[in-house]
Amino acid sequence: MSVNQNKQKTLELRELALRDGLQLTQSFPTTEEKIKLISLEYLAGVRYFEVGSFLPAKTFPQFADIGQLIAYVETLEGTHSSALTLNVRALDDALQTQVNEVVISLSATEEHCQANIKRSIESAINLIRLAINKRNNVDGNPLVSCAISVAFGCSIAGHVDPDNVVRIAVQCAEFGAEKIAVADTVGFAGPSQVYALSKRVIREVGDIPVVIHLHDTRGTGIANAYAALEAGVRVFDGTLGGLGGCPFAPGASGNVAFEDLVYLCERSGFPTGIDLPKLFEARQYLAEVLPNETLGGVIAQALPPKNIDWQAHHFLG
Amino acid sequence: MSVNQNKQKTLELRELALRDGLQLTQSFPTTEEKIKLISLEYLAGVRYFEVGSFLPAKTFPQFADIGQLIAYVETLEGTHSSALTLNVRALDDALQTQVNEVVISLSATEEHCQANIKRSIESAINLIRLAINKRNNVDGNPLVSCAISVAFGCSIAGHVDPDNVVRIAVQCAEFGAEKIAVADTVGFAGPSQVYALSKRVIREVGDIPVVIHLHDTRGTGIANAYAALEAGVRVFDGTLGGLGGCPFAPGASGNVAFEDLVYLCERSGFPTGIDLPKLFEARQYLAEVLPNETLGGVIAQALPPKNIDWQAHHFLG
Repeated sequence: MSVNQNKQKTLELRELALRDGLQLTQSFPTTEEKIKLISLEYLAGVRYFEVGSFLPAKTFPQFADIGQLIAYVETLEGTHSSALTLNVRALDDALQTQVNEVVISLSATEEHCQANIKRSIESAINLIRLAINKRNNVDGNPLVSCAISVAFGCSIAGHVDPDNVVRIAVQCAEFGAEKIAVADTVGFAGPSQVYALSKRVIREVGDIPVVIHLHDTRGTGIANAYAALEAGVRVFDGTLGGLGGCPFAPGASGNVAFEDLVYLCERSGFPTGIDLPKLFEARQYLAEVLPNETLGGVIAQALPPKNIDWQAHHFLG
Repeated sequence: MSVNQNKQKTLELRELALRDGLQLTQSFPTTEEKIKLISLEYLAGVRYFEVGSFLPAKTFPQFADIGQLIAYVETLEGTHSSALTLNVRALDDALQTQVNEVVISLSATEEHCQANIKRSIESAINLIRLAINKRNNVDGNPLVSCAISVAFGCSIAGHVDPDNVVRIAVQCAEFGAEKIAVADTVGFAGPSQVYALSKRVIREVGDIPVVIHLHDTRGTGIANAYAALEAGVRVFDGTLGGLGGCPFAPGASGNVAFEDLVYLCERSGFPTGIDLPKLFEARQYLAEVLPNETLGGVIAQALPPKNIDWQAHHFLG
């Protein structure tokens, strides 16, 4: 059951463990386990769930149950489900469900775009226009959003000109994208860079919410999130336990840990609506159903300070 | 051999592994090993070394060789040595050496000050005046600096009023302290808090360099460092490999990792003069001589991005 993202002034923290978190794991939870995980996170206050990618079940069995997960999220009051769609077929499949948002992924460099989704940047942008048209003909009225990968540096092409990212973001906005995610897919970003690019994208795309998607590969994930907060970003991606290792830095952490993001936001004066101790219970459950994965993140182990008031009580930003 | 800190406009990164890093370790390196560590760090470009605390050798054998380390650092061109002194006797001992800086530690709360150094805040501030007088009568002319512990929250007293920290910093400055460190001793700080307090302290103490001393206990260490950089702080503490666990959060990391701090600064446009691959060699040596310690930090494992230019080439701040 969706809330209108575009009118939302407070923070939106998007939990992507069941999508970005499962792209590289050795094993994956059963559908029952995924549903229990979502329910535990929901009890902790999480409202945005990216539950998978519309991909062939044979090659990507971890996402075969995406329809069931979308249906489950829809039963929970005030939630928002999203799913990744990389081509027209995926889009058509997504539009048959009650998903609240379809995410179209493209890249800031042609090299990464070809390697990742086997199409050019231009072709990916056209997919957004197509998605908007298709969306307008179905009942569910899901948001159509885009995610610009390797926006802060590319594992294949190296340096990424911020002008290119801004141009792609503006094109996506002009073609109808209703939310624009700027992603540090390979953990190359530093906070000054995140601040500068976030400011520019926010300014250039007008009223469309800008999302920052961060990986903590090089220890700058939380600093980058803070820089984005300072730049005015109010929508963030993360995965519970930092699930989702980065293939380019074996042993290093992948996605920024959702629970660390919650702690950062609260400690910085932005209420999240999320109860950290309850979120730690969900994380513990995730650890149990994926015993071979090493979870990342710091706050679940260190715990928030016991004798100071670290939670945000009013909206500062 | 000292450089004048007060005229230094670029960054100063202070490596404290042999002091703050050794306060809680099960074992400690031999003097020969410590000297080799300093020499490896020096080759990597490190210039500021806090080499120990003037404490009774019987109770604190890890600092018994402090005089030899100060003498060794003095043989290296362009370096700066410092040592902690908690009382008059330690001060007298320090002033008999060629140490370039004596650090007087006090706390932002009476409770922590009594527990940590067994004196009141007022008495600790008076020690600074005494140190200045004593320093003026010896040849070496070391700087006298102060470090305000638990400035962002206290493990004993809880919330710390920023007004108190500012008042203590100003008093220290008025009594002659030549550098003022603001310390997140127990890792309670968030970046907004660090930004706000750093700004205020810098404004209130005038030309005196303000140092930020951070612990990464709750995953916000690097974000806090970035916030301090943005607030105008140019002097930072860290320990190689994040050596120095926090007793209040077992299993969690302690001091912010020096090498992660270097990466953050370079990635944020601030040249450090430090060669990270060479610094990783020093870290590797530290791991070898302290095999029972788990080193922290991220960048030594993940390594900086290979195909982008992440180093700072000109001074931005």
